[in-house]
Amino acid sequence: MSSLFLRTLREDPADAEVPSHKLLVRAGYVRRVAPGGYSWLPLGLRVLRNIETVVREEMDAIGAQEIQFPALLPKEPYEATGRWSEYGPLLFRLQDRKGVDYLLGPTHEELFALTVKGEYSSYKDYPVMLYQVQTKYRDEARPRAGILRGREFVMKDSYSFDLDDEGLERSYQLHRAAYIKIFDRLGLDYVVVSATSGAMGGSASEEFLAVSETGEDTYVRSNGSGYAANVEAVVTTAPAAQPLEGRPEAQVHYTPGTPTIETLVDYLNASADLGRTFTAADTLKNVLVKTRQPGEKDWKLLAVGVPGDREVDMKRLEASLEPAEVALLEDTDFAANPFLVKGYIGPGALASNGVRFLVDPRIVDGTAWVTGADKADHHVVDLLCGRDFTPDGTIEAAEVREGDASPDGKGTLVAARGIEIGHIFQLGRKYADVFELDALGPDSKPVRITMGSYGIGVSRLVAAIAEQHHDEIGLVWPRSIAPADVHVVIAGKDESVAEGGERLAAQLSERGVRVLLDDRKASPGVKFADAELVGVPTILVVGRGLANGVVEVKDRATGERSEIAVDDVVEHVVALTKR
Amino acid sequence: MSSLFLRTLREDPADAEVPSHKLLVRAGYVRRVAPGGYSWLPLGLRVLRNIETVVREEMDAIGAQEIQFPALLPKEPYEATGRWSEYGPLLFRLQDRKGVDYLLGPTHEELFALTVKGEYSSYKDYPVMLYQVQTKYRDEARPRAGILRGREFVMKDSYSFDLDDEGLERSYQLHRAAYIKIFDRLGLDYVVVSATSGAMGGSASEEFLAVSETGEDTYVRSNGSGYAANVEAVVTTAPAAQPLEGRPEAQVHYTPGTPTIETLVDYLNASADLGRTFTAADTLKNVLVKTRQPGEKDWKLLAVGVPGDREVDMKRLEASLEPAEVALLEDTDFAANPFLVKGYIGPGALASNGVRFLVDPRIVDGTAWVTGADKADHHVVDLLCGRDFTPDGTIEAAEVREGDASPDGKGTLVAARGIEIGHIFQLGRKYADVFELDALGPDSKPVRITMGSYGIGVSRLVAAIAEQHHDEIGLVWPRSIAPADVHVVIAGKDESVAEGGERLAAQLSERGVRVLLDDRKASPGVKFADAELVGVPTILVVGRGLANGVVEVKDRATGERSEIAVDDVVEHVVALTKR
Repeated sequence: MSSLFLRTLREDPADAEVPSHKLLVRAGYVRRVAPGGYSWLPLGLRVLRNIETVVREEMDAIGAQEIQFPALLPKEPYEATGRWSEYGPLLFRLQDRKGVDYLLGPTHEELFALTVKGEYSSYKDYPVMLYQVQTKYRDEARPRAGILRGREFVMKDSYSFDLDDEGLERSYQLHRAAYIKIFDRLGLDYVVVSATSGAMGGSASEEFLAVSETGEDTYVRSNGSGYAANVEAVVTTAPAAQPLEGRPEAQVHYTPGTPTIETLVDYLNASADLGRTFTAADTLKNVLVKTRQPGEKDWKLLAVGVPGDREVDMKRLEASLEPAEVALLEDTDFAANPFLVKGYIGPGALASNGVRFLVDPRIVDGTAWVTGADKADHHVVDLLCGRDFTPDGTIEAAEVREGDASPDGKGTLVAARGIEIGHIFQLGRKYADVFELDALGPDSKPVRITMGSYGIGVSRLVAAIAEQHHDEIGLVWPRSIAPADVHVVIAGKDESVAEGGERLAAQLSERGVRVLLDDRKASPGVKFADAELVGVPTILVVGRGLANGVVEVKDRATGERSEIAVDDVVEHVVALTKR
Repeated sequence: MSSLFLRTLREDPADAEVPSHKLLVRAGYVRRVAPGGYSWLPLGLRVLRNIETVVREEMDAIGAQEIQFPALLPKEPYEATGRWSEYGPLLFRLQDRKGVDYLLGPTHEELFALTVKGEYSSYKDYPVMLYQVQTKYRDEARPRAGILRGREFVMKDSYSFDLDDEGLERSYQLHRAAYIKIFDRLGLDYVVVSATSGAMGGSASEEFLAVSETGEDTYVRSNGSGYAANVEAVVTTAPAAQPLEGRPEAQVHYTPGTPTIETLVDYLNASADLGRTFTAADTLKNVLVKTRQPGEKDWKLLAVGVPGDREVDMKRLEASLEPAEVALLEDTDFAANPFLVKGYIGPGALASNGVRFLVDPRIVDGTAWVTGADKADHHVVDLLCGRDFTPDGTIEAAEVREGDASPDGKGTLVAARGIEIGHIFQLGRKYADVFELDALGPDSKPVRITMGSYGIGVSRLVAAIAEQHHDEIGLVWPRSIAPADVHVVIAGKDESVAEGGERLAAQLSERGVRVLLDDRKASPGVKFADAELVGVPTILVVGRGLANGVVEVKDRATGERSEIAVDDVVEHVVALTKR
């Protein structure tokens, strides 16, 4: 450490909010260079490389082959798949000296598909799985939390190519199992959540989330089963349809000054006419948005109907409508569509004006609702779905709440937060269709290839692990990826202590133990504080006890200390590293 | 090889001109993705990684510490040093979603200087050497020869930080020695050439060039000493000055129709008046260019005088004037400066119109010249330097020719070509001055840090080594970086042959030998051709001989074959890999 390019900081960096960011900067692992751009100092780079090694070993173990693409990529393949425009401002775009368009790769589906098409032609060539560990670029609107969400980051992305759906399922499961091994080896506490609604076939996409309060991803899990899902992927359980016959007729009521659900419910319950009590869940709230398909110029109106006790969750709505863009209506939109009576919009005006109307799955045939009557200060009561209005379909857009029934029917949902560390995805034939990626089958007929794509946020893992492995005074690395196995602290000014520490460090190195030796001319207090901050799993203190033939071994994680005879300590530490 | 992502090609790629490009594509090491952008397929990536390992080992051995910067860098530091504009179109520039300027790093002097400034403060912290192995970007006007000159490439760049010039010299020499070890380990034939004129102090900059006909860098070496230099760095030996007294007077002659040196010399020699014979070397050719300093808007005229038997070498001229831009005059420039009489420009009009006039070092006081008389169809003879005209200084701009005297006084120069694989450079305090990179000295006064920068073109090395290590039928890798140690070819359809090959491959792997096993269902001829093309140093053929207990071991480089008993072959191959 007397020559290591490392300066620890006593103060948290001003821009840091989450523990991993604070500690990784304070312990000298990373430094900020630009918004969302960090440099890796020696200790940080070692942790990053150790993680890369674990990832590579498990990828190689399932037969995936490593290759490497440029990060600076031509526009054409991304234009062919539509991602050049779909990515929007998230894509870093640039031009070369001739004015030709390029991008900095966010992921490489296009290039892998084209490369496999270029090399392979026969069904005998398949299946194949390829991966790279590569620097990726995304122009995040809000880079945050240091390396947790950067604009330049290291990712392991792999792609599988199979002849049929069974093959894709096999490649997917191989990756799933490899990811579990990787995250287990990295000492992570994580969940695997469904990332799509299941409409595409169950396990078409799953995310690996490191459990963390500081995570950006909200997910829900069941308190009665192993179910876990992204909030975007939660499928609402639809109630059974009810009979349409013999139900009260819909009636328009004068409900002055009730443009919100709250004012409406209060008015209805205060009014003697109706003779019953209403809750927000009895009302149907119709939220107007506008959507635009990729490549299209014009926006279209869309009405989303949800029970009045729930808000529309824009993230769920966007996920449901992907790849279309979604925006809220502006005053000019209302002005252009005078049939939309703000606060009193009902299914009637939507239908008669051709506005697409999608509803929450809870709104099934035979359910009765209080909703807008398309006239200021008026609502309609007992409007019956399937009789008085017919939605154009259902949509997952209503907020998911703790206590909602778990989609698997077991228990209720509990909310949690996590950091996305991995994502596995059955792409299917989307990319193969664009590039006509075919294999010549045994019957000489072309077989369209089906693809999977699988990502791990390698540099983000450094932060995710730090989030789970730290305490108030510093980092606490799992041994598998720690920058060193043992931190030897020379605590004392005696020449004999320094010599003893250096000799032990040399002996440990000879035995293959990775040693960080604090040979600085600093006080023991400074050295101990730095050792706790840096977070190497084993701290070996060589100090006054040396005269009595003992040194102190401290476990960084548990804080346990033990005095060990100098003659035994090398074997002792070697044994620790082999656990 | 039955599952390896590799398809060899029988035909050279259409866009390939040099052997390394042809063979690396044909053997499936790299694939073109964009102009100057290549992907690394499995075998290529292994070679690249092997080279990286050698580079890292030798960098670590001299105490350099690895860190890693982003490639996407903010504009400000590069603007501070002027490189944002100096780099011109060579720099990839882009903007983020907020319109903030960024660049893709060509080299990282600015960031390393700023980082050291951020971490270090005391003289006790120094010296320090830092490096990274990183993807770099340069928007080359003419990317060529595959990975030999790409726009995205892998480079090892290191930087030294010292308190004084002696320290810098020591860091420089450490790098020089490490580079020699690296290139020796990689099996390269290379020269170390002076890359600057020496005006800055001898070894301020040297280039490592891999000797190769296909290289872009021309250099010269002496046939009488170890001298070697970039053409840009060759220092012209100035002759001794001659007396000015008692020399013939300058006389203007009517020389109709002689705007070129050739027509002038012919005319003079055909004319009876002068009574002597002239050669082109007796004439002084004044070439007009215009220059512009970085950041300035206006161009200034510059006249360059060279002996008429030599052309102005624009590369040498540009190197001499760096960082200024240089351009040839256009017709509008001549029109704006009517005193410039095309074909008849002389020192007189330059002096009286204030045009800066720099001359070749051969033009010393007392040398007499035939040159333009600033009047159409007229030249002046016996114009004496130091008497009739006084240049503003000298400049290295004249072409260097084979047969020129070696600058070290020993032998004459011979031209050669090479591929730049390394560059070491004593930067001095240029960057430290910009960023005020100081250490607090023992006397509490600031000491300005002096820097060195050192680069190795890591991905280019793959091509440079391939240029030197191939034959007509394929690549011939040095063992230190080959993608495998042994290529086991199963040559025969018998089940026992396949089993024998697989068993040997497994035994070799167990002994730590890196094996490439050709277990494909292909003819022995196809397999042999691929083995020669791929270029693994040892080829082990398991075929009919197996029944008699022998296999064939072939040395890819020498072509030597030997039959070895099956029972001995594992030891035999293990011994080969340890040589």
